[in-house]
Amino acid sequence: MVELRTPKGTVDHSPKDARKMAHIAKVITRIFEEHGGQPISTPTFELRSLLLNKYGEEGKLIYNLEEQGGDSCSLRYDLTVPFSRYVASNRITKMRRYQIGSVFRRDNPSFKTGRLREFTQADFDICGTCIPGLFDAEILAMLSAILAQLCPSASFEIRVNDRRILSGMLESCGIEKDRHATVCSTIDKADKHTWSELTTEFIQKGLSTVQTDAIQRYIMRKGSNEELLEFLREESEKSHDKEYIQAVSDLRDILCYAERLGAAEIRVDLSLARGLDYYTGMIIEAGYIGSEVGSVAGGGRYDSLCSSLKGPKVPCVGFSLGVSRVFGLVDFEEQRKGVFIGSASGGCLPERMDLLKELWQAGVRAETFPGTRINFGEHLRAAENGGYAFAAFLGRDEIEKDEVLLIEIESGRRENIPRNEFMNYIKEKLK
Amino acid sequence: MVELRTPKGTVDHSPKDARKMAHIAKVITRIFEEHGGQPISTPTFELRSLLLNKYGEEGKLIYNLEEQGGDSCSLRYDLTVPFSRYVASNRITKMRRYQIGSVFRRDNPSFKTGRLREFTQADFDICGTCIPGLFDAEILAMLSAILAQLCPSASFEIRVNDRRILSGMLESCGIEKDRHATVCSTIDKADKHTWSELTTEFIQKGLSTVQTDAIQRYIMRKGSNEELLEFLREESEKSHDKEYIQAVSDLRDILCYAERLGAAEIRVDLSLARGLDYYTGMIIEAGYIGSEVGSVAGGGRYDSLCSSLKGPKVPCVGFSLGVSRVFGLVDFEEQRKGVFIGSASGGCLPERMDLLKELWQAGVRAETFPGTRINFGEHLRAAENGGYAFAAFLGRDEIEKDEVLLIEIESGRRENIPRNEFMNYIKEKLK
Repeated sequence: MVELRTPKGTVDHSPKDARKMAHIAKVITRIFEEHGGQPISTPTFELRSLLLNKYGEEGKLIYNLEEQGGDSCSLRYDLTVPFSRYVASNRITKMRRYQIGSVFRRDNPSFKTGRLREFTQADFDICGTCIPGLFDAEILAMLSAILAQLCPSASFEIRVNDRRILSGMLESCGIEKDRHATVCSTIDKADKHTWSELTTEFIQKGLSTVQTDAIQRYIMRKGSNEELLEFLREESEKSHDKEYIQAVSDLRDILCYAERLGAAEIRVDLSLARGLDYYTGMIIEAGYIGSEVGSVAGGGRYDSLCSSLKGPKVPCVGFSLGVSRVFGLVDFEEQRKGVFIGSASGGCLPERMDLLKELWQAGVRAETFPGTRINFGEHLRAAENGGYAFAAFLGRDEIEKDEVLLIEIESGRRENIPRNEFMNYIKEKLK
Repeated sequence: MVELRTPKGTVDHSPKDARKMAHIAKVITRIFEEHGGQPISTPTFELRSLLLNKYGEEGKLIYNLEEQGGDSCSLRYDLTVPFSRYVASNRITKMRRYQIGSVFRRDNPSFKTGRLREFTQADFDICGTCIPGLFDAEILAMLSAILAQLCPSASFEIRVNDRRILSGMLESCGIEKDRHATVCSTIDKADKHTWSELTTEFIQKGLSTVQTDAIQRYIMRKGSNEELLEFLREESEKSHDKEYIQAVSDLRDILCYAERLGAAEIRVDLSLARGLDYYTGMIIEAGYIGSEVGSVAGGGRYDSLCSSLKGPKVPCVGFSLGVSRVFGLVDFEEQRKGVFIGSASGGCLPERMDLLKELWQAGVRAETFPGTRINFGEHLRAAENGGYAFAAFLGRDEIEKDEVLLIEIESGRRENIPRNEFMNYIKEKLK
């Protein structure tokens, strides 16, 4: 017997939810377009070889397609690696692209926080060479605008750090370079785990308690952006690590540009690590304050991903917003639209069909539902449930008087409109 | 080494193509909404058990996901079976739903005709009980409006038949009921194969040459809708098959209603069969005349699919339009939008950032690209390639005179606008 459910971790969207998804996508797309974004789309699945070794320890969550002859394929895990493939294979050196689409992760789903196995990401990335920090700052300004517009009533925060700062810090804690990626993927769990859980993981990964303590002192450091930048300046200069020093100076520029471009609520966070392997500079993560959903967007700079795919070296910076993650936080009420055509007396189908055709041709949402049993209340309910603004009744009584009985759903107000004036009247009403 | 390509039968959409896809989806969605459609979305993959035995001989083209623990899943093959699951599991008895999304078929791809392994379908279906033929006719009216609006310059044709008419015909050719489905799936190939190829397949499926000849005589019959309806009336009455007789009378009603609702270019075609198993009444297929793409949409009535999924019996009728199939036939030219901010003299970044912020806050598409080498011509080209309507130059000369040099990309016309009047001026220009 067939089981009537969606696969684990996946959901249907009802009309109400689907309309809200479309609303969120529209808000995001408008801001993507304002920033010169160009849409692309890539396939739902990619060659498996492309996705290997791109996602660090998360790579085990990739969905594979069954081998059925031909290419070995996997469902896309994010939109960033496919974008890098697009950039590398088309030998692009300069682009602002956006893409909104499903990605797939065999993770433990949580419906409450919008962590699903199939979920929608909205990505914006800028690739190309620019004066350092300017595009990074623009990414922060965009994310800030999107978060503010999606939930005007909620406060958000965009946390920012830099992979080179993390590396400099780990170096100064005496941790070898080839272990930075795995250590970062543990640090990345800091918001979901206690420090003692992290310590256990560090020890399992072969760190000493001295190293673990040093990491803790560093990443737990709090303060204003200015205080933390000053702390980082001193630390980086002590280390004589050129990359580290540069990263701190870049971060200062980024914050300065971001403010000029209108970004708000940016906070330097030394514990921010991001789990994915491909970041090389600024990293960011954003969320709404007090929400149990956790982070709703993340991203950063990845300057080596395209060249690792035998393309030219193309610096890239961008972010992904988890549309399913913000879903529960966004308020959205669909407006009533159009006219449901009912009939209190039944029949009168030719007249109703003519009116339907006129309404469609005028671009007005309209339907009729001539069941075998005719009932005034049922038609009114159908108009209400269908999201219509009006119910227009056209039965024998109305046809005799050559008029239409028009009922406004919200107010219940009734009017009799002469049939030959009806189209102009309703078009005016629906404006 | 990583191969930089998409999997066989899949494509990337460049910005130009992605914008055209969005345009097509918008035209279709508008008509779906006019007809009271409600959007839903369903997962990209379904439980494998749901898809089994729904697609006749095409079922072998389904993509399976690898068994990685948990549910056995397959990528969706169409949007109709997932919709029926949605209807059955939510115990819906009345709905007009639409969905636009990717479906997946391991078929031999042809890029020329838009036959891909991942392609976009746009589906509209009406479920619920109604006087016979009315919803079928509305489906024809919608499809007719969509085809006319997508390619105003091309002629289209919607071919229509009925599964019960095919059954009655096969019965009268002496073919047993349990072979009708497999015989239909051969008839379905009539537009792509010669009659002798079909004959070979019929013989392989165990039909006699007398039966094969009888089928040919029947499905090759041409004539006006009126002539064919009259022929069918006589044939069905001869057969005394009640379903067959009813189907012919329904088809007459459908054509009459469809005309009243504004449908155009409907043609009765006795050779139309449709490959899928689940149709129970009217079947349709549509295409543009003279196009090598072949059919771009298909559909029909499927009254038993929901009840076969242990849901209540819910009559359904609808169609799928292959967005990738019409893609090559649709003309679309994106309009230039917004302002690219350049600088002939280089530098002036703070001033450019302030202008950028003002433009974004006014909802105007805008970007700047301060490379290390500044070049007037390069900036103009970037504005042109980025799809901008204007290039605004803000360099040392302009800042000294407190103005902006504005160049309209299409005409090349130049104007110097005082800086403090610029925002109002450009907003007016872009209206």
